[in-house]
Amino acid sequence: MSAPLDLLVLGNAIVDVIARTDEGFLSAQGVAKGAMQLIDEPRAEELFSAMGPATIVSGGSGANTAVGAAILGAKTGFVGKVREDELGRLFAHDLKATGVAFGVAPAKDGPATARCFVLVTPDGERTMNTYLGACQGLSPADVNEATVASARVTYLEGYLWDPPAAKDAFRKAVRIAHNAGQAVALTLSDAFCVGRYRDEFLGLIRDGSIDILFANIGELQSLYQTDDPDAAIRALRDERDNRGRHLLGLVTRSEEGSVVVKGGEIRAVEVSPVREVVDSTGAGDLFAAGFLAGHARGLDYVTSARLGALAAAEVIQHIGARPQGDLVALARARGLI
Amino acid sequence: MSAPLDLLVLGNAIVDVIARTDEGFLSAQGVAKGAMQLIDEPRAEELFSAMGPATIVSGGSGANTAVGAAILGAKTGFVGKVREDELGRLFAHDLKATGVAFGVAPAKDGPATARCFVLVTPDGERTMNTYLGACQGLSPADVNEATVASARVTYLEGYLWDPPAAKDAFRKAVRIAHNAGQAVALTLSDAFCVGRYRDEFLGLIRDGSIDILFANIGELQSLYQTDDPDAAIRALRDERDNRGRHLLGLVTRSEEGSVVVKGGEIRAVEVSPVREVVDSTGAGDLFAAGFLAGHARGLDYVTSARLGALAAAEVIQHIGARPQGDLVALARARGLI
Repeated sequence: MSAPLDLLVLGNAIVDVIARTDEGFLSAQGVAKGAMQLIDEPRAEELFSAMGPATIVSGGSGANTAVGAAILGAKTGFVGKVREDELGRLFAHDLKATGVAFGVAPAKDGPATARCFVLVTPDGERTMNTYLGACQGLSPADVNEATVASARVTYLEGYLWDPPAAKDAFRKAVRIAHNAGQAVALTLSDAFCVGRYRDEFLGLIRDGSIDILFANIGELQSLYQTDDPDAAIRALRDERDNRGRHLLGLVTRSEEGSVVVKGGEIRAVEVSPVREVVDSTGAGDLFAAGFLAGHARGLDYVTSARLGALAAAEVIQHIGARPQGDLVALARARGLI
Repeated sequence: MSAPLDLLVLGNAIVDVIARTDEGFLSAQGVAKGAMQLIDEPRAEELFSAMGPATIVSGGSGANTAVGAAILGAKTGFVGKVREDELGRLFAHDLKATGVAFGVAPAKDGPATARCFVLVTPDGERTMNTYLGACQGLSPADVNEATVASARVTYLEGYLWDPPAAKDAFRKAVRIAHNAGQAVALTLSDAFCVGRYRDEFLGLIRDGSIDILFANIGELQSLYQTDDPDAAIRALRDERDNRGRHLLGLVTRSEEGSVVVKGGEIRAVEVSPVREVVDSTGAGDLFAAGFLAGHARGLDYVTSARLGALAAAEVIQHIGARPQGDLVALARARGLI
């Protein structure tokens, strides 16, 4: 894994257990619609027993991004922790089958491979309950210096702030990437995640740890604690790190498209057409995948954001957060690549 | 599990590992398109490594039938063997979540829960490679006498002839059902399966073990070793058991609809409309589910076959062999129930 990479993703290695459900089930289970909530093992058992028939597919926000970027031609690697069990094997297989380099050794014991119970309501919205399991074993030892140094962009999940040791792996990766003159990207992951770690995320932005920031508008509003989406975007536009540099910001706004924030300027990018939203899981992950793959191909920011919108549109039209359609053919048909 | 059942299904308890593929992959792997082939554990590992990203959903021909019938209102039970592992828990969960009674204890050790690698080509055809694993542990001890005696129809997979001990479980169930004055149904499962056990299946039909036979036209032609579909249907029409009784035959012919063969007569039933065949896995299983659920509701054979066609049409329009749409609403909209 030391050949140069366009993109190295650090994230929680998670398998999705997806069931269709209705609003009544969400209320009965006391889960907040649209959010990601962490659960422990007994609660995972209880929720699984109560939910409907399940489909199991690999997931994990960052891993979804890695797969999408690899499919779109970026040389991509992934760092995350599974256990040596059936779901862990599925996760590793699915990365390799899509051309993502994945060299982290699975844990031989300890908690099982992480799973996210994804409850999809008839409106296509997804509500997530995550048991982190083996992800809690990700540590700085899993971050290979040569690999990080070789990657043009190292992309980090905000969710990595949840399992305690992963934060150290995250900081190690930032240090190596910047020492090698490479870029670091962060996704804010989830509005509630931002609520848990707001000060730390703002700290990372302001101390120069982050060169590229991905967020949806809800996450950005949570970061800046404002009800006004435009105010949140302006706050991002006005951010400068301790060396006075603006970062590159990519903000998604569901059916209102996305916004590229760069060098104090704001540029809106239109959404890709969608026939029917079946399952919105992975929309943000695939936007990041398309953007980063476009960036790796040398496309300008707006065209890269259009590629992101296209990848996001594909993934929300079916169950599961990994692409099923031929993203390259779709991108060619739209003249993006 | 001793409240009266409309339907008790005995089958191989299998989880499907589904990947999209192309004709080239099938040739390179040397697998016969459209068929079900048995594989051992090393071959299962090899095939999984080579195949693309996978979706995991519960399957198993008979279990798919049980789930479809339960969703359509039949009180249904299932008998089959999983191991106590993650895929075994998924399988048991998915039965219970759809209202199918499932009381067979999982194996605590021995081979893993069975998995079927389902390779779906762009034309929607599925090619199956099955590692039987824990299914080989199904034995007569797993067949509860009171449960079988309570069931109006006991439905058996031809595939049960593959794991050696399951055949004894099958014969025990036939004996109990007939002693209790109940009906026994058999599905021929697969043309190659018929090739393996032709004489035994004909023996079961002719010694009065089977009251209702499900087959697709390829399986029926394999049974009677004829290239002429009409000749195969006439041969079925003319079957009589050792007491001179005709059986009830249901023959599916893909887009040409189905045929009800009863009392020396043949009646064609039209197909249900389909927008696009995405994955044909489970078409026959769901036809049987709809027919048996209709039968349990007291519908005539032709209306029951229409309900079967409707359930089959739903399942081939998405990935996986378990219904995802609301079969009851679809059946009501068509005036079938």
